[in-house]
Amino acid sequence: MAQENRGVKIVTIGGGSSYTPELMEGFIKRFEEMPIREIWLVDIEEGREKLEIVGAMARRMWEASGYPTQVHTTLDRRAALPDADFVTTQFRVGLLYARIKDERIPLSWGMLGQETNGAGGIFKAFRTIPVIGEIIDDMRELCPEAWLVNFTNPSGMVTEAAIKQFGWRRTIGLCNVPVNAMLMEPKIVGYPEGAEDLTFRFAGLNHFHWHRVFDRRGADITARVIERLNDPDNGMPVNIADIPFPLDLIRAIGMLPCAYHRYYYLHAEMLAHALEEFARGESRAEQVKKTEEELFELYRDPALDHKPEQLARRGGAHYSDAACECVNAIWNDKHEHMVVSCENRGALSDLASDSIVEVSALISSKGAEPIAWGEMPAQERGWLQMMKAMEECVIDAAITGDYGRALEAFCLNPLIENGAAAQHVLDELLIAHERYLPRFAAKIVELKSAGVQVRDETAARLVAQGH
Amino acid sequence: MAQENRGVKIVTIGGGSSYTPELMEGFIKRFEEMPIREIWLVDIEEGREKLEIVGAMARRMWEASGYPTQVHTTLDRRAALPDADFVTTQFRVGLLYARIKDERIPLSWGMLGQETNGAGGIFKAFRTIPVIGEIIDDMRELCPEAWLVNFTNPSGMVTEAAIKQFGWRRTIGLCNVPVNAMLMEPKIVGYPEGAEDLTFRFAGLNHFHWHRVFDRRGADITARVIERLNDPDNGMPVNIADIPFPLDLIRAIGMLPCAYHRYYYLHAEMLAHALEEFARGESRAEQVKKTEEELFELYRDPALDHKPEQLARRGGAHYSDAACECVNAIWNDKHEHMVVSCENRGALSDLASDSIVEVSALISSKGAEPIAWGEMPAQERGWLQMMKAMEECVIDAAITGDYGRALEAFCLNPLIENGAAAQHVLDELLIAHERYLPRFAAKIVELKSAGVQVRDETAARLVAQGH
Amino acid sequence: MAQENRGVKIVTIGGGSSYTPELMEGFIKRFEEMPIREIWLVDIEEGREKLEIVGAMARRMWEASGYPTQVHTTLDRRAALPDADFVTTQFRVGLLYARIKDERIPLSWGMLGQETNGAGGIFKAFRTIPVIGEIIDDMRELCPEAWLVNFTNPSGMVTEAAIKQFGWRRTIGLCNVPVNAMLMEPKIVGYPEGAEDLTFRFAGLNHFHWHRVFDRRGADITARVIERLNDPDNGMPVNIADIPFPLDLIRAIGMLPCAYHRYYYLHAEMLAHALEEFARGESRAEQVKKTEEELFELYRDPALDHKPEQLARRGGAHYSDAACECVNAIWNDKHEHMVVSCENRGALSDLASDSIVEVSALISSKGAEPIAWGEMPAQERGWLQMMKAMEECVIDAAITGDYGRALEAFCLNPLIENGAAAQHVLDELLIAHERYLPRFAAKIVELKSAGVQVRDETAARLVAQGH
Amino acid sequence: MAQENRGVKIVTIGGGSSYTPELMEGFIKRFEEMPIREIWLVDIEEGREKLEIVGAMARRMWEASGYPTQVHTTLDRRAALPDADFVTTQFRVGLLYARIKDERIPLSWGMLGQETNGAGGIFKAFRTIPVIGEIIDDMRELCPEAWLVNFTNPSGMVTEAAIKQFGWRRTIGLCNVPVNAMLMEPKIVGYPEGAEDLTFRFAGLNHFHWHRVFDRRGADITARVIERLNDPDNGMPVNIADIPFPLDLIRAIGMLPCAYHRYYYLHAEMLAHALEEFARGESRAEQVKKTEEELFELYRDPALDHKPEQLARRGGAHYSDAACECVNAIWNDKHEHMVVSCENRGALSDLASDSIVEVSALISSKGAEPIAWGEMPAQERGWLQMMKAMEECVIDAAITGDYGRALEAFCLNPLIENGAAAQHVLDELLIAHERYLPRFAAKIVELKSAGVQVRDETAARLVAQGH
Repeated sequence: MAQENRGVKIVTIGGGSSYTPELMEGFIKRFEEMPIREIWLVDIEEGREKLEIVGAMARRMWEASGYPTQVHTTLDRRAALPDADFVTTQFRVGLLYARIKDERIPLSWGMLGQETNGAGGIFKAFRTIPVIGEIIDDMRELCPEAWLVNFTNPSGMVTEAAIKQFGWRRTIGLCNVPVNAMLMEPKIVGYPEGAEDLTFRFAGLNHFHWHRVFDRRGADITARVIERLNDPDNGMPVNIADIPFPLDLIRAIGMLPCAYHRYYYLHAEMLAHALEEFARGESRAEQVKKTEEELFELYRDPALDHKPEQLARRGGAHYSDAACECVNAIWNDKHEHMVVSCENRGALSDLASDSIVEVSALISSKGAEPIAWGEMPAQERGWLQMMKAMEECVIDAAITGDYGRALEAFCLNPLIENGAAAQHVLDELLIAHERYLPRFAAKIVELKSAGVQVRDETAARLVAQGH
Repeated sequence: MAQENRGVKIVTIGGGSSYTPELMEGFIKRFEEMPIREIWLVDIEEGREKLEIVGAMARRMWEASGYPTQVHTTLDRRAALPDADFVTTQFRVGLLYARIKDERIPLSWGMLGQETNGAGGIFKAFRTIPVIGEIIDDMRELCPEAWLVNFTNPSGMVTEAAIKQFGWRRTIGLCNVPVNAMLMEPKIVGYPEGAEDLTFRFAGLNHFHWHRVFDRRGADITARVIERLNDPDNGMPVNIADIPFPLDLIRAIGMLPCAYHRYYYLHAEMLAHALEEFARGESRAEQVKKTEEELFELYRDPALDHKPEQLARRGGAHYSDAACECVNAIWNDKHEHMVVSCENRGALSDLASDSIVEVSALISSKGAEPIAWGEMPAQERGWLQMMKAMEECVIDAAITGDYGRALEAFCLNPLIENGAAAQHVLDELLIAHERYLPRFAAKIVELKSAGVQVRDETAARLVAQGH
Repeated sequence: MAQENRGVKIVTIGGGSSYTPELMEGFIKRFEEMPIREIWLVDIEEGREKLEIVGAMARRMWEASGYPTQVHTTLDRRAALPDADFVTTQFRVGLLYARIKDERIPLSWGMLGQETNGAGGIFKAFRTIPVIGEIIDDMRELCPEAWLVNFTNPSGMVTEAAIKQFGWRRTIGLCNVPVNAMLMEPKIVGYPEGAEDLTFRFAGLNHFHWHRVFDRRGADITARVIERLNDPDNGMPVNIADIPFPLDLIRAIGMLPCAYHRYYYLHAEMLAHALEEFARGESRAEQVKKTEEELFELYRDPALDHKPEQLARRGGAHYSDAACECVNAIWNDKHEHMVVSCENRGALSDLASDSIVEVSALISSKGAEPIAWGEMPAQERGWLQMMKAMEECVIDAAITGDYGRALEAFCLNPLIENGAAAQHVLDELLIAHERYLPRFAAKIVELKSAGVQVRDETAARLVAQGH
Repeated sequence: MAQENRGVKIVTIGGGSSYTPELMEGFIKRFEEMPIREIWLVDIEEGREKLEIVGAMARRMWEASGYPTQVHTTLDRRAALPDADFVTTQFRVGLLYARIKDERIPLSWGMLGQETNGAGGIFKAFRTIPVIGEIIDDMRELCPEAWLVNFTNPSGMVTEAAIKQFGWRRTIGLCNVPVNAMLMEPKIVGYPEGAEDLTFRFAGLNHFHWHRVFDRRGADITARVIERLNDPDNGMPVNIADIPFPLDLIRAIGMLPCAYHRYYYLHAEMLAHALEEFARGESRAEQVKKTEEELFELYRDPALDHKPEQLARRGGAHYSDAACECVNAIWNDKHEHMVVSCENRGALSDLASDSIVEVSALISSKGAEPIAWGEMPAQERGWLQMMKAMEECVIDAAITGDYGRALEAFCLNPLIENGAAAQHVLDELLIAHERYLPRFAAKIVELKSAGVQVRDETAARLVAQGH
């Protein structure tokens, strides 16, 4: 898409996010390569205040940069979209309140909520996927050539829905987990220069992938990295409890897990840790909410015109930078290696060709082209096929509002313990998120008249407050 | 294989089993169709006493029948095998003592042992598969035309090893779970005549399959049967705690689960129930041991010449009868519908063509020909692919003695909670079964010198006693 | 579907066919098992005279049988369909005139026409598939529970279109080729009693399948039958030139080919033979037309009340009998082995699960359930995958009228020699069949204005006569 | 593999080839990036004279370059191999005499010989594959870390045998056909700068692939290139008759064919052209032989120290340069896009994951990593699956010497017309190449005693002369 002289137009849905300053920094850093004409930050009425704060902050950052890029803020998505080149999505339906409910309700029944892979992640998908469908409807009309760069979680399922269900093939899903691994792992095995000295190959699903590492001579040094996997500063996201990986298992696997594999390989310990935090009165969501409020406090400062240090401490560090680099690689046809969620096309031959996978890919003006990986060993094949099936049930339920399909998704999800409690969790989450789940409306009415209530007090209070 | 006039020769490995009288009854019942010349009951030194009791009982049964079939008992497998037409396997390496350890050790760490699908089942596979390999080595030499009819659990994995790893394609794996369902379900939906009025189609893996039911007009009446699934007398094996299935989930699935699905769909409740029994001082294995002792008490009675009622109360009712019918269908080329473990050949198109699956098949002199089923819906596809991958890890570990592969099998198994405790369970089971796991010898030595010990007192005592 | 007391209603589209007496004979023969209440013979205006002759003949046959079945004839399909239990299709769009063009035009360019597998067969599909779509539209409205038993050629492609494209899953495609093989092969290897002594397993596509033969002891006797493959009276259809199969090749394949494989394995000889016939002034279609006229001469005889001997001499002997047996097996839930075109469901694991294949299947009130076959050896896999791809191009072109897709179908078809002449054949056939190819209308206009003309005089004359 | 200071060691099997000067030129051109320490040119006794001429020429070229690289010539492969970094293969078993027989014998029966895809190509595979197996045996012992860069035809089948059958995963197969397309196509659509402005993506099999072309903005400009496909200077190899592609078909396909597709899409015309040349007394092989003799005349000139212009006129231009670039990309871990034969790994999801395919790949120190392509449309899928099956039959026959498998390969090959003549061609070729086909020895003896003789006089004379 390069060689344009009119400059790039970016629209960011969920523009009032606390991540926006990182996004601005990323675009400023790349301006010489990719001159951005205008950026539209879009948000909804509930996010108006945050949007204004972040919008002002973004304008200060661009002014400080000296580049002529214009920053617009709006609550009207359709006003922003016309002729956009890239639409990035980083919104959170129901704000952090929703995440609090996603996490607390399962925990109140003794299960991990886990906002991307567990019951919480399933509900985040339920709330988000229909909205992505609406955004794509608008894009089809207003900017039919635009790329959708999604970094709304659960990124893999949202991307699968965008491409397979809503038919927007120009979608790429992003995640910062691989970025962090590629930044940190070279250091822990003694390549201080960083990723330039090593080649990484990732394959799997979003928040559920493995990777191998090679040196410049082609030698597979994965085993060496595995031995240092539990070192401090190993690139694991700050939002995941730092319980050491079981090395005997990882050695048997022979590939590097992603941080989220802890939830699966160490389910007992991760659950115990989450329940302990919960007992202390705080879910992860509530910690994040506090951090976010501090960030907005900073952003209000009219003297602040660069990304503050504190932002890096949130779980999503490098997320926005990955998005900027992805936009850049498309715009400038860079054929650059990135790890993204995109159509499989056979790259992982154990999954269907039209499934969305998270793999090493070349990013260019043609979008993402996965590098073929081939077959997985039996164990990883089994995990992946089950997780993909679970994702399919989630997406189907999100679109149809089918309660039975939702139950099936819960049943397959390895972070949810099957039994009567699982169904209670499902039912309470449906009620708790009623406002954001119009497709499940009939079932929710039925559950409510059957007397289902949210048991966790904090969550129940949020619902009562209209969140 | 019909039209022979010399009569059939059957060899039963594990002939001292308490199931043998049912097997004898089954063969007697079918003698006019399939005249058996001789039956060899084979066992090992540890089973000598039981073999003698059961052998005498078997001879009395045949005498009472008036048929001229000869029953031989021997501790020398190679003396029994020459020119056998059928070899049936129903042995238990390590006797019921092994099952006690299989169940108690996981329970002592708060997990289901489950002797066919859980950690216990994995270890049963570890002990059994190498022995099946040795039996096949003997068969290759002594009765190269014989069929191996396996009903040693875990029947699916043992059959897969026999066919794929040891190359004995004339193997069929049996299980009584489908038999029971086909016997009882017609009754609960009002077809008192039984299975003749209905057609059943099963697909899945051993102890992990679903089925559909059709009436003679081709109408799918599965939904009707689902509604009665939790009725009393529904054909569920007596060895599985009778906790009601979650009907909302089963309706969403739209197929009938097998009894063992309770462990997966109701994991929390089944675990709680098992832990309760364990707290009361008794695992399922110990109950079975008691039942078995009572049975042998009966078998000792020189007046008893028919299968006693009490045998039906064990979990395995109809197991042996299924084996007799399978032998009959092969011998008489009956092209009869049975549900067996056999090579997939595409019947379940979500699994590899050479995987062993448990499906509706035609049994004839050519062996088992599965009836094509096609693709599964997403949820069942995910479960099946994961379970098959788990089985592959188990079989591989059983044959190679690879500890890492065993860890992977544990990690994939949904009845084992991942984390440090899972590895403790693995390590203790290895030590507890040292005598029957020569392929893991090196690792066991290592674990012992690292101080690993069996924590459960009953299990530890059995080990100390040389079991 | 059994246990009805109202009797069966059959509708036969193309009821004026010369095969109808065989169909009547088949139903009469099975009346005690399957009491037919009424038979509707449906045809179109052009076939009115033949319909009347055959209808009268059919009535005489039923009268002679003594059964109370009523035979109706009509030119109004929608009057016939309401509440039908079975709709059988045996029509020929464009009558035998169309077949003459299908065969002569390719031959005039030095290629095999071959009315089912070659260029002729492609055009038969182009003419037939849209009509099948219209019939199904009517069935959906008027007899939504009816089974469609198709024996209109090319039977495999028509069945695939009916099931995959038009969504009528209650469709079964029939062919007499397997029936003939199963009738004759037992005799040529010395089982005079016939098929009862042997078991047959077929797999492949319509007019492109292989089979294996087993005796009652399960021994594979295929190699023995291969050695007698070129014996006289080997069950090969009379409409295929009887050139001996190349035994070295068939031995290497290790399976029995179908008669139509001659066109592929002996392309040079079959082409030479057809060109010779063509040079003598007669295509196969013209011979058939003569036979058919003779048959109708017989049918006119008001004294004739049974199927005349001469009908057997047409290529399609046993076609209609197979249809009757299929109807019977569905009605009476017989679970009978037949070789039919039906959904693959993984039975041939080298082809997609939703492809239509021609395989050994069990026919019951649930329809056709294929017996799983598994993987083919490399050679047959290659042939099958190519032929299925060709069929997909044909069906797609038939439905869309896409000229490029038609070219692709021609390009893949192994009986058409690629090059400029192939495109001439395509273009001339389009023009010659203009009347029956409304979906290709725009392209045909274009070809005509570009001056394309039918070169073969006989074919051109038929077109000029309005055929 | 970079960062070595000892320099690279190259061994070239078939070093006496007329292509060697191009190879030398390619290495000289890249010396600064990839310093080569020593090059070993290996040949066999029959090629001694050519080896000496070419070896001397190579030494003059390196001297003229000023680089210190040493050139060795030897007839002892095992003396050359120790510690090689790269082994390149460009040999021709039986020299050009073999190609003459490969082409003339089929033509004498009215069929294309076609030295890579037709009957000739099958026999080239039969002669070459066992020798590749021997080379790999030596490499396993003497240079276990070396890469095998094969450009011996049929390159795809030789590569598949090397990787799948002989287990040498460090093999990459090369071909100049994609190189030529990428060089010429930018010019014909107006990108004079060449390939830098465009991105190419290839997928298929060696000499049987398609490609798409994209501009730097990501737009697919394939359709534009298709319209210019028959322009002069379109990059088609000089060794293929320049008959215009059928544009209607190519437009329907929507991808660019490779030059060899002419043999399939224009079979009639290509055959007619070859038969015409043959009638004029000359096969393509004989023309090449003349060109080669002229080249060696030039190489003898002690003043010549650079690649002569005339070499480019052979069919294989750019072949050796591609090999040099491949070696360079591995050595310097370049992750460079090249089109090579390598393991599929799912890249073409219609073929098995372990099949060898010719696709766009990244070449680095890890070898070739294919870029995932996904599924092919029906037509190309059908062709590819058939061609791959044919290749598998060829490779199997080459290794086992199984005559039936060879017949099956002939039967599937679309350039061979099936029938009695095809078997005659097979039989004559077996006899004609007796010396180079030890694995078929028994069958050849049988054919000879049955009186089979080579009918073509020129070919018969070569056999009589001991070629």
